[in-house]
Amino acid sequence: MRRIKIILAYDGTEFHGWQRQPDLPTIQGTLQEVLNEIEGKLVQVEGSGRTDAGVHALGQVAAFWLENRIPVENLKKAMNRLLPGDIRVLGVEEVAAGFHPRYMARSKTYEYRIFRGEVCPPFERRYVYHYPYPLEERRVIEAAPLLEGEHDFSVFAAADESDQEGESKVRTIFFSRAEQRADLLVYRVSGSGFLKHMVRNIVGTLLEVGKGNLDQAGLRTLLAPGTTVKAGPRAPACGLFLVGVEY
Amino acid sequence: MRRIKIILAYDGTEFHGWQRQPDLPTIQGTLQEVLNEIEGKLVQVEGSGRTDAGVHALGQVAAFWLENRIPVENLKKAMNRLLPGDIRVLGVEEVAAGFHPRYMARSKTYEYRIFRGEVCPPFERRYVYHYPYPLEERRVIEAAPLLEGEHDFSVFAAADESDQEGESKVRTIFFSRAEQRADLLVYRVSGSGFLKHMVRNIVGTLLEVGKGNLDQAGLRTLLAPGTTVKAGPRAPACGLFLVGVEY
Repeated sequence: MRRIKIILAYDGTEFHGWQRQPDLPTIQGTLQEVLNEIEGKLVQVEGSGRTDAGVHALGQVAAFWLENRIPVENLKKAMNRLLPGDIRVLGVEEVAAGFHPRYMARSKTYEYRIFRGEVCPPFERRYVYHYPYPLEERRVIEAAPLLEGEHDFSVFAAADESDQEGESKVRTIFFSRAEQRADLLVYRVSGSGFLKHMVRNIVGTLLEVGKGNLDQAGLRTLLAPGTTVKAGPRAPACGLFLVGVEY
Repeated sequence: MRRIKIILAYDGTEFHGWQRQPDLPTIQGTLQEVLNEIEGKLVQVEGSGRTDAGVHALGQVAAFWLENRIPVENLKKAMNRLLPGDIRVLGVEEVAAGFHPRYMARSKTYEYRIFRGEVCPPFERRYVYHYPYPLEERRVIEAAPLLEGEHDFSVFAAADESDQEGESKVRTIFFSRAEQRADLLVYRVSGSGFLKHMVRNIVGTLLEVGKGNLDQAGLRTLLAPGTTVKAGPRAPACGLFLVGVEY
């Protein structure tokens, strides 16, 4: 058996997220169907992590076991021929048997794109959060780096995840910056790991800072141990891209 | 009654072209439904010309009569609130009663985008023609300007249009150039007017030149009066954008 690592880009708009669900289109489910066809039997695909429904990827990483001796370049071609156009295999390589895309990831990078113009171009609408309302971008840009470092991100976790006792919500953020690129406000974050909905909740909170509903002291309070303050609302999935996974 | 001119962008992927058809989503039909709602009675929208199913627009122009005295800036907002996200009104202005978007157009500009990379990014797939096969781009770039000038474009007209006797197929092309932009081969053409399917048939023919199936002399023959040579196959709709209409 060969251990195969793949790098994927996908447009998450039409998918119910990464994780396989019966009778619903998902990234994992679609990949497994295609690999089942190539291998002639069930193939289990493991990802670096789940992405929510509607979230996109520029460089998701996944791995699986394959008996088929097809050269990696042909495997890439075969997968792209069988997959729908909204999922593309960008790279395929054979890796050591011990490779695990989730447990061995050292860091992940996400990007969140907010379109600030009055009218959102039809060609961008699936790939940005259109937020044309008043916002002090400067406040967002200045507050974003406060998230860098090791913090307890409990308040930024999904509600259903926060309830689980015992599991640490401490994560290290290596990079957390926002910048303006023409009509886009782009937030980029790299970290050792991310809780469910964490990036979208961070973005929603930074937007509260931009709206003047929260200041830098308030943001620091959210990251303080044992805080009971609530984070901002979760930003929509369509603006979020998993940029890459580093090993 | 006020004469209103609008500039539109649309993602043509989900539409059966410009022209209203019963029970099918079209650009004209969708605009009319929204304007009927604003005006409270039937509004007839005239475009600068039809676009085929799947063809996009960055700057389509249309016009209609309106009794409603809503200011143009509010009309733009109301239309964008009621329209689906794949059609956007970029501009609205009140014009002279005599304005007609089709008959008064001096020229139109189209762009056709060919993606040359091996793997088409999922985010581009609706907006390019993915052609990763061997092609001498240099031949396409060198041949494109041969179409400039006044020619009989009969062989580039749609089959059903070529059958109509009597109507002139002579058009003037002001600009016809191709260029490479990273992984894209972009063809841009401006002209006094275009026959049905003309741009897509020109692109299909230029691709034949790039593949070495046709040379510059062959292309000139296609433009010669009374030619019986056949043009190249029609290129897919998804790569084509109506860039703008000049008055």
